[in-house]
Amino acid sequence: MKYPIEAIATAAAPTPAGHYAQAVAWGDLVFVSGQLPVRADGTLGADQPFESQVRQTLANVLAILEAAGSGPDGVLKVTAYIVGVENWPAFNAIYAEVFGAARPARAVVPVPSLHHGYLIEIEATAVRGAQTS
Amino acid sequence: MKYPIEAIATAAAPTPAGHYAQAVAWGDLVFVSGQLPVRADGTLGADQPFESQVRQTLANVLAILEAAGSGPDGVLKVTAYIVGVENWPAFNAIYAEVFGAARPARAVVPVPSLHHGYLIEIEATAVRGAQTS
Amino acid sequence: MKYPIEAIATAAAPTPAGHYAQAVAWGDLVFVSGQLPVRADGTLGADQPFESQVRQTLANVLAILEAAGSGPDGVLKVTAYIVGVENWPAFNAIYAEVFGAARPARAVVPVPSLHHGYLIEIEATAVRGAQTS
Repeated sequence: MKYPIEAIATAAAPTPAGHYAQAVAWGDLVFVSGQLPVRADGTLGADQPFESQVRQTLANVLAILEAAGSGPDGVLKVTAYIVGVENWPAFNAIYAEVFGAARPARAVVPVPSLHHGYLIEIEATAVRGAQTS
Repeated sequence: MKYPIEAIATAAAPTPAGHYAQAVAWGDLVFVSGQLPVRADGTLGADQPFESQVRQTLANVLAILEAAGSGPDGVLKVTAYIVGVENWPAFNAIYAEVFGAARPARAVVPVPSLHHGYLIEIEATAVRGAQTS
Repeated sequence: MKYPIEAIATAAAPTPAGHYAQAVAWGDLVFVSGQLPVRADGTLGADQPFESQVRQTLANVLAILEAAGSGPDGVLKVTAYIVGVENWPAFNAIYAEVFGAARPARAVVPVPSLHHGYLIEIEATAVRGAQTS
């Protein structure tokens, strides 16, 4: 391969609970692992309301993107797995607020449940490096 | 990043219902957002049979790919989320008809439900530009 | 596009049951289709315990990666769809054993069911070519 695969690690997002990196980068491409609403200090907060879980999860994704040299404007695709399709509007509203002018490709995928009883998991594919647009 | 991230927008597929682009392109890569069987004019048709929903969803994906300068032959990976794993054979038959000679990588992922009560959602990763094969 | 899209095919993994390639490669990038615990000879083994299903599925993914000129060290992102979130620890343990030092980005996505009654499906995005790290 032209570039090495680089593991991204930051204390600003929760330590991986399993056999994965928070993200890996290969050249300009960044792949962020599925993030749950775990707080950066490792406490779970699975009893938090849906809205709080969305904010924590997006905060984790953005902290990892920043550590990789990317950010909201560098995101190509987001996949959000949510428990309860009725949570779609609440998810979309908070997501829009956090992403602002950036509108990556996105899929919202309802799932029957998530680890620790969480209601949302978010993964992202992004690019990093000097912004040209 | 070497290339700007370009938002793809076409009136030949439904307007995004949330905070996302129909697709984004970065260099030769195109990421198509999860498409539902919404008609291009915005009417829902969630009461249509599964087969009709598959055709409408694939039509949406292909219209967006065309707007991005790609098409069935440029697709690298498709992820199809379906409600009811028993719909797999019907999905595969229509998909084969639509994709023809092209056989991208694919995953079919059963989900408990989808937005508006739809039975299928499809997303794609593709490349665009002059075909060399 | 700068590179042709290449279909990957190997007898060391099960023949696709539908309209998809085992994987496609485009330049250095490899997209492996969602693999189920089907044996390379096509027998199903859907009655096997979860642990056996994980091993068979990972074996299929790795056989396809090898045919594409990649391997565990070349994997960027894995998505594992599992039936029963309570199977997460068992999945992670076998996955860690198989991947060893490699820790790609990963998402584990619970689903209500899978084709043929299987308990796991795994897809991967990887790179191939000479290792530089």
